[in-house]
Amino acid sequence: MNAPADLARLHPAVAPRPVPESLLAALRERFGAQCSTAMAVREQHGRDESPFDVPPPAAVIFAQSTRDVADAVRLASDADVPVIPFGVGSSLEGHLLAVQGGISIDLSRMDQVLSVNAEDLTVTVQPGVTRRQLNEELRSSGLFFPIDPGADASIGGMTATRASGTNAVRYGTMRENVLALEVVTASGEAIRTGTRARKSSAGYDLTRLMVGSEGTLGVATEITLRIYPLPEAVSAAICSFPSIEAAVRTTIQIIQLGVPIARVELIDVNAVRMVNAHSRLSLREEPMLLMEFHGSPAGVQEQAETVQAIASEMGGNDFEWATTPEERTRLWTARHNAYFAAVQSRPGCRAVTTDTCVPISRLADCLLASVDEADASGIPYFLVGHVGDGNFHFGYLIDPHDHDERLRAEQLSHDLVSRAIAMGGTCTGEHGIGLHKMGFLIDEAGDGAVAMMRTLKKALDPKNILNPGKIFSL
Amino acid sequence: MNAPADLARLHPAVAPRPVPESLLAALRERFGAQCSTAMAVREQHGRDESPFDVPPPAAVIFAQSTRDVADAVRLASDADVPVIPFGVGSSLEGHLLAVQGGISIDLSRMDQVLSVNAEDLTVTVQPGVTRRQLNEELRSSGLFFPIDPGADASIGGMTATRASGTNAVRYGTMRENVLALEVVTASGEAIRTGTRARKSSAGYDLTRLMVGSEGTLGVATEITLRIYPLPEAVSAAICSFPSIEAAVRTTIQIIQLGVPIARVELIDVNAVRMVNAHSRLSLREEPMLLMEFHGSPAGVQEQAETVQAIASEMGGNDFEWATTPEERTRLWTARHNAYFAAVQSRPGCRAVTTDTCVPISRLADCLLASVDEADASGIPYFLVGHVGDGNFHFGYLIDPHDHDERLRAEQLSHDLVSRAIAMGGTCTGEHGIGLHKMGFLIDEAGDGAVAMMRTLKKALDPKNILNPGKIFSL
Repeated sequence: MNAPADLARLHPAVAPRPVPESLLAALRERFGAQCSTAMAVREQHGRDESPFDVPPPAAVIFAQSTRDVADAVRLASDADVPVIPFGVGSSLEGHLLAVQGGISIDLSRMDQVLSVNAEDLTVTVQPGVTRRQLNEELRSSGLFFPIDPGADASIGGMTATRASGTNAVRYGTMRENVLALEVVTASGEAIRTGTRARKSSAGYDLTRLMVGSEGTLGVATEITLRIYPLPEAVSAAICSFPSIEAAVRTTIQIIQLGVPIARVELIDVNAVRMVNAHSRLSLREEPMLLMEFHGSPAGVQEQAETVQAIASEMGGNDFEWATTPEERTRLWTARHNAYFAAVQSRPGCRAVTTDTCVPISRLADCLLASVDEADASGIPYFLVGHVGDGNFHFGYLIDPHDHDERLRAEQLSHDLVSRAIAMGGTCTGEHGIGLHKMGFLIDEAGDGAVAMMRTLKKALDPKNILNPGKIFSL
Repeated sequence: MNAPADLARLHPAVAPRPVPESLLAALRERFGAQCSTAMAVREQHGRDESPFDVPPPAAVIFAQSTRDVADAVRLASDADVPVIPFGVGSSLEGHLLAVQGGISIDLSRMDQVLSVNAEDLTVTVQPGVTRRQLNEELRSSGLFFPIDPGADASIGGMTATRASGTNAVRYGTMRENVLALEVVTASGEAIRTGTRARKSSAGYDLTRLMVGSEGTLGVATEITLRIYPLPEAVSAAICSFPSIEAAVRTTIQIIQLGVPIARVELIDVNAVRMVNAHSRLSLREEPMLLMEFHGSPAGVQEQAETVQAIASEMGGNDFEWATTPEERTRLWTARHNAYFAAVQSRPGCRAVTTDTCVPISRLADCLLASVDEADASGIPYFLVGHVGDGNFHFGYLIDPHDHDERLRAEQLSHDLVSRAIAMGGTCTGEHGIGLHKMGFLIDEAGDGAVAMMRTLKKALDPKNILNPGKIFSL
């Protein structure tokens, strides 16, 4: 990786553009109490779960409608001022930081489920709806939205980062599950991409261009998603293994046999210990797979039998079944809290997280080499993974005031990403590029592809006002 | 629909740009015998299965490598001359027609399967590989590529049109199954989009932007696809129904219950008759569903029982099972030959085909109204559909010399598309826009979205040389 990118990973380029007083006046006039310039509000909207500290945006607009978003973008565009869409603030990669200044557009009040089309298995929501809220509202219909990145993220944020998480191995990611969007463009115009049809060959795939564009090409104001019938039968199980390798090789074989497993999550022994401490559990302190099976009763049993046979061959212990919904919820809550459990295990620390995803045949090689390196570093860390997709996360728990430790963690991350890219993988399976992985994107995609991305950005946002300075420098 | 679009559907705007003799000389020098200006070769590359007649391209380059494609594009770009990628010529929408002149780049000699990564369930191919060839080459590995548009199309062409077909209800379309591409851009540079990782959040989704762009944004020279383990058990069945409505309502219920059926194809009584005559079959002359189930033996049986119960409730006859691979092949070949069987049923005719796709809840309303209109018109027609996706095709069999009949067929098509769009559907589920559906794209996507597509096109192809005049006028 080149040196400037290394520096960018530690210190993003911060160059706030001027925000004229006339813009703030116009925003106050248009938005009244929906516009805040209070420092506490600005600071809350100027940070996320990334390890960066950057000055906050100049103002926050609490949008309540597409019209609000369009007007805010138009006013900002007239003044050449950046806008940064904000959902719940759970980005890990610095997406929400005002590195070029500007205003934050908070979408959390756009929290309506606009329509549930149960017969078509689609739902249309505003971007501020969170995934848990959506599933609450769907519950009575016998349907659910499977994408589950752990955090109770907003659907808008999940769309912007092309999120996925624990169920993606069976149900796909936001790439596969966003059918259509309403998007406010850089000029403040609302357009629609896609229809509610399951498939289409009607022109360029603007929906997929917007999904994962991290707020740099438009602001999604309505999102149409695929939803699924709640499976007739669900069962979850944990299985401990004598080594990470045994757990990973079990996963690889499950996938290669085509078992339609719904979730298969790796949790390393460090993460098990942290989760036990945080969630008052007594999970066996060994590497484990946390699995879930969806289907008909017979289908679930068939899947579970196949997986148990594979696990047993690899030295796995007996499955411990979580048969009631309450037990399942407790297990998955523990898994989802792994990040917070880890951060709390070292008071005052921050996590440098990785998000590599490799072809499944390379998963063991890639992951095990990085475990060795992390163990050798002496830096506390945890490892969890959506291993059915070949995606896993190290979290290196660093003292943010210890420059040397931070550098060593970044070196671990760098070595892991380089290995993943060399193996045909990606630097980010689901978190996005943001500020933190801009150098890696060049390594992975190459100058030609990144140049094409820049060309698209310049064409759709000629004033560079939509979340500028993210994905690539511009 | 606006009047100019109506005219475009009958007579595409043809305005050949000059092809300087110096370009032809340069192509001959660079490509030798791989460059042909023979009229027979040009004419073969200047038509497809669409009902349009347009003057042929000025030359045909038979590319054998990415380098060949890049050099051909660069030479054409230097002379401001269009290039049109050509696979096997099976487009139904005029994609291959040289409406602005230029040269055809024939990719059929780039027919190598470059790598099969069985453990990762991926394969990388050159664009001239056809789907049947690919499955032949995969057969010994126990894997298969499910996307099946009927014609033995090239993978490059299927990528360009975002093709799908009979298996999409279970396995998705080219949108879901292309993982990565090598693409030659308008400047003749080769870039890579995507990796072999199953998922990624690394920047803009250039892969999905290229898939379905109909050769207007780049020429795919390598394509990495998802492949699947051959199912342990496969069974196919046909079921006749007293009415199209009964067949469609059976399909809707199968999908809404979440049955993972692999194929569910509607064939109307006209198509059954034509197929019987063409393929010497004796299928019962009633509307029918042709279905296939993939899975474990127990899973397949479970699916089949569920579907039989639904069909029986809707008045369907008993299933007739095709249990041997030979019987299945015969059935699916008959289905795939429906188009040719239909065209041969009226000597000298051409087919005006439709490709609407609607949300499944609207399928019966949309389809039945169009059946009534087609019956009332007196024009011979057939109807087949990938109804599990809400996608179906009318083929109106017209005398190409009968202007009035052509107009009436276009009116039927227009009324159907308008109905589908009003129901939240799309004018094209899998064939693409090409020349024939440009007016419909505006109706469906709106001026704002089409303007965004034009902006993208101008940014990536400033000289407008990549298959110009397709998707939208430019």
